[in-house]
Amino acid sequence: MSTANPRVAVLTGSPNDLPRVEKAVAVLDSLGIASELRVLSAHRTPHETVQYVADAEARGVQVFIACAGMANHLAGVVAAHTLRPVIGVPLGSTNLSGLDSLLSTVQMPPGVPVATVAVDGTRNAGFLAARILGLQDTEITARLAEVREKDKERYTL
Amino acid sequence: MSTANPRVAVLTGSPNDLPRVEKAVAVLDSLGIASELRVLSAHRTPHETVQYVADAEARGVQVFIACAGMANHLAGVVAAHTLRPVIGVPLGSTNLSGLDSLLSTVQMPPGVPVATVAVDGTRNAGFLAARILGLQDTEITARLAEVREKDKERYTL
Amino acid sequence: MSTANPRVAVLTGSPNDLPRVEKAVAVLDSLGIASELRVLSAHRTPHETVQYVADAEARGVQVFIACAGMANHLAGVVAAHTLRPVIGVPLGSTNLSGLDSLLSTVQMPPGVPVATVAVDGTRNAGFLAARILGLQDTEITARLAEVREKDKERYTL
Amino acid sequence: MSTANPRVAVLTGSPNDLPRVEKAVAVLDSLGIASELRVLSAHRTPHETVQYVADAEARGVQVFIACAGMANHLAGVVAAHTLRPVIGVPLGSTNLSGLDSLLSTVQMPPGVPVATVAVDGTRNAGFLAARILGLQDTEITARLAEVREKDKERYTL
Amino acid sequence: MSTANPRVAVLTGSPNDLPRVEKAVAVLDSLGIASELRVLSAHRTPHETVQYVADAEARGVQVFIACAGMANHLAGVVAAHTLRPVIGVPLGSTNLSGLDSLLSTVQMPPGVPVATVAVDGTRNAGFLAARILGLQDTEITARLAEVREKDKERYTL
Amino acid sequence: MSTANPRVAVLTGSPNDLPRVEKAVAVLDSLGIASELRVLSAHRTPHETVQYVADAEARGVQVFIACAGMANHLAGVVAAHTLRPVIGVPLGSTNLSGLDSLLSTVQMPPGVPVATVAVDGTRNAGFLAARILGLQDTEITARLAEVREKDKERYTL
Amino acid sequence: MSTANPRVAVLTGSPNDLPRVEKAVAVLDSLGIASELRVLSAHRTPHETVQYVADAEARGVQVFIACAGMANHLAGVVAAHTLRPVIGVPLGSTNLSGLDSLLSTVQMPPGVPVATVAVDGTRNAGFLAARILGLQDTEITARLAEVREKDKERYTL
Amino acid sequence: MSTANPRVAVLTGSPNDLPRVEKAVAVLDSLGIASELRVLSAHRTPHETVQYVADAEARGVQVFIACAGMANHLAGVVAAHTLRPVIGVPLGSTNLSGLDSLLSTVQMPPGVPVATVAVDGTRNAGFLAARILGLQDTEITARLAEVREKDKERYTL
Repeated sequence: MSTANPRVAVLTGSPNDLPRVEKAVAVLDSLGIASELRVLSAHRTPHETVQYVADAEARGVQVFIACAGMANHLAGVVAAHTLRPVIGVPLGSTNLSGLDSLLSTVQMPPGVPVATVAVDGTRNAGFLAARILGLQDTEITARLAEVREKDKERYTL
Repeated sequence: MSTANPRVAVLTGSPNDLPRVEKAVAVLDSLGIASELRVLSAHRTPHETVQYVADAEARGVQVFIACAGMANHLAGVVAAHTLRPVIGVPLGSTNLSGLDSLLSTVQMPPGVPVATVAVDGTRNAGFLAARILGLQDTEITARLAEVREKDKERYTL
Repeated sequence: MSTANPRVAVLTGSPNDLPRVEKAVAVLDSLGIASELRVLSAHRTPHETVQYVADAEARGVQVFIACAGMANHLAGVVAAHTLRPVIGVPLGSTNLSGLDSLLSTVQMPPGVPVATVAVDGTRNAGFLAARILGLQDTEITARLAEVREKDKERYTL
Repeated sequence: MSTANPRVAVLTGSPNDLPRVEKAVAVLDSLGIASELRVLSAHRTPHETVQYVADAEARGVQVFIACAGMANHLAGVVAAHTLRPVIGVPLGSTNLSGLDSLLSTVQMPPGVPVATVAVDGTRNAGFLAARILGLQDTEITARLAEVREKDKERYTL
Repeated sequence: MSTANPRVAVLTGSPNDLPRVEKAVAVLDSLGIASELRVLSAHRTPHETVQYVADAEARGVQVFIACAGMANHLAGVVAAHTLRPVIGVPLGSTNLSGLDSLLSTVQMPPGVPVATVAVDGTRNAGFLAARILGLQDTEITARLAEVREKDKERYTL
Repeated sequence: MSTANPRVAVLTGSPNDLPRVEKAVAVLDSLGIASELRVLSAHRTPHETVQYVADAEARGVQVFIACAGMANHLAGVVAAHTLRPVIGVPLGSTNLSGLDSLLSTVQMPPGVPVATVAVDGTRNAGFLAARILGLQDTEITARLAEVREKDKERYTL
Repeated sequence: MSTANPRVAVLTGSPNDLPRVEKAVAVLDSLGIASELRVLSAHRTPHETVQYVADAEARGVQVFIACAGMANHLAGVVAAHTLRPVIGVPLGSTNLSGLDSLLSTVQMPPGVPVATVAVDGTRNAGFLAARILGLQDTEITARLAEVREKDKERYTL
Repeated sequence: MSTANPRVAVLTGSPNDLPRVEKAVAVLDSLGIASELRVLSAHRTPHETVQYVADAEARGVQVFIACAGMANHLAGVVAAHTLRPVIGVPLGSTNLSGLDSLLSTVQMPPGVPVATVAVDGTRNAGFLAARILGLQDTEITARLAEVREKDKERYTL
């Protein structure tokens, strides 16, 4: 479902994290939401990151998901360059169990919020993006309701 | 700006937290977003909370902001009863510096995301709600852009 | 010993946690205490959870044991819907070593206590339930005394 | 309501902690549960503590509440000398925000459970004792239900 | 000693932090090192920050000191836009005792190092800059040696 | 070197920890210090523990080493029943990386000190006991000096 | 009781910490143990520290107590230069609640143990030194027994 | 590139850590910076460490990199004996995930700074040394710019 007109951009700071990050894309796909996945680093490709955000906005991206480990600055940098909602996913790639990444994602100063989900919560980033887009698109919300029903079954023993 | 047709519901688990929580309302007011503020507790008034969420949705509330200290279950309970975006604000009311509240807000299981902001980040909860609503209402985004410009001035010395 | 008239309900938030949670049931079985085991999620099956608690109370369940990882809201939700004792077991299923689950289980507000045991302390949840039920049933306490004697032998080298 | 036939013993490791610990007694009093309050230290008066536990049991004490700061060993020592339920309250008296006390109270080995409540959760210790005693005494549960109703009013704005 | 040809740029994310940050300038002044102090925010004035770094480098700034609280992204952003040494000072401005700021400053990915000093270690940031510049300017090292001698006296009782 | 007249008692709370605890005995053996190793639990065999401490003192034990994981109360209990030096070794057997055990060992109240070494620092417990006994026995100190010399060689590359 | 022939050296890394450190001296005084107090810094006066340790040993000092905040290296440095017992006291002088100081004091490598007491546990450092010296001097142990008796009274209400 | 005239000394507290530490040397080699690698322990070979620092300085070493796990005192000891820049690398070798090592490296007192990089950040220690030396040697900075360009390619997908 990754198409020419993505509504969600899924960004990750390192190619190593792609397997985990692709779970966000899979959730979006399953909900019929077009997305695109990019490796962009706040530290190694800062200009490209800023450029990408402006360009993605122009192409109609409405929600950004930024995933990174260690000091996760990616979500904050994206949030500083757009006024659209930015979801941050702290990745638990280090010794410090993801606490470093969690705190560097969530503790943003007033005016530049990052909607933070759990450590390694890539799937929930997809679900949160869907809730946001569902405000304008009742079909998405209907699909979320279906997922919830199925989840209920799985969680009833 | 708290009106008959609120688009954002700001909930808090305890009357003691109202002074901090009112900062979220103030941000929303300043951006021209109608909101309503309620004290509702996941633990003391669980039925009322569930009832309120259903009712608020029916009245057109699009984003929920849930603020609580200690084990913050409020945001999670709200997220379990709506498919609209829920923003969680961990309040740092205890001995444990808000770490208890942060972890109990952000570490949600797949399918039930809470968009978590910083410990005591009530103002950012307002800004995040505005970014979400701005996807449907360019006036809100325009006002966010104005705030950003003013912030730039304040932060340039 | 899981019978038609269980005195303890053992709940867990996810089928993945069943192997650990079954240790609570095994302890109860070994002490002759009838129990029942259910998968119920505070977030995915909130209505079923609330319904279950009311129904279980009516059927004579006296103690609830609620086990969950990440943000463990299950114990708190159960405690909000019953006035019987609720034992919470934080499960250490995540990156954050169970600290998230511990703090979200134990840091309950006044009036809604959760009797929290150690991270992954499912066996102790069974022993704690037995101590509580032993107040009305001296046979249970007698069996606990036997276990204690055997433990003494095992721990004397 | 501290009478000749207490059903709950409230213990604290240091006279300095009495003001906080008295909140547990106040909750028990308000629920019509007779209790007695003692200063007993796992480390300074270990023999007296062990003696007291045996004696209190003989006099009919059914639930023990043990409150202490720093390395809280009091609850564990009491739990090792009785088979009745022991509630541990970590007190946040030190630099380390009560994390030391929380972990030393809750992380008990299998067979010797301590029902741990929040850091400084003395009031909840009283409520938890009441839930346990309410299993045998429906009047206590009725009073808990009244408190819950009043709490609902306080938490509905 | 803040002159037209500063060799060190001292940056801070917020005007509120100026009193603490000025201690870095005071240390540099006392060692005869020209510096300049700017308020620049990675999140509120990202373009200005990037622009400033390029400009400062062109004017001869050799070391950057970046101070910020909460999620300190400032040091990382500066390090991403220069190849000169960047010293990061985590400020302990929040509930979380500066742990958030420490981890978000120090946990940088390979290739983009931030030389991190203690929480609120603004004075040591000045001393570290002096050690770095002393490699090219023996007078600075001579002054550091004097400070060390005086410190010895102060710390000998 | 475990003989009829041990000068050091090495205690551990669980048979599972014996492999790690034996490293303390090995260090003592290598330094020619007679010791004895016992499994004794503060919680499962409290009377035996207290009895053992009194008896060991009478037989000439001069230093106690107490090793335990989770909530390590063993060292504290021993320290409460002797006036001889007690060395505590927190074992990192749980999810919480030994932080639980470290804090419950070291955070003792005034008057009842436990000489705490690193998490899993069983070897250092042996070395610390040797330093203490070396004050009365210069041969032990001479052997420690030999170990130090050998260590220097191993650590010089 | 600070005399010409001190048996305990009490060292602190900074003059600011003297009020807290003097509590160790007061405990030693009250037990009739001669001590001396010095300000010596592992970082500012390293040569003097090493020199002092050698000299103090020659003069008959048997136990060293080293108190410091932040990264407490003082105890480790002293332990590296003597084979006598070294007691480390982490001081909680910073933002990080003494966790920095605790971990940097206790986590010593094999062969160089530091007998660590609680954060700000200066009084217990005195009591631990007394237990160690009491092995050779039964009068000290007798005085410790008196203190313990008095403590029992204070802790029995 | 480890030659007779090293400009960087890479030190590690234990031979066990050599594999990780050699990554710092590899980075320096790749940037054409001569270095030398030594095993030196703040605790086991303190005199040799101090001697080495003085000697290395005399031979022209300009930057020291000190790597150690547990209580990392090595970087601090080196910083106390030189006025040249010292980079500290906390190694995550223990149970405590490197938090012990991070805090004991970074929390240095004013006047004795250690430029701390991430837990296990040996490669970044090399890059930081290169930035410092690049201030005097534009060829090093040119090579850093090349690395950065290559990194950009790797991080653009």
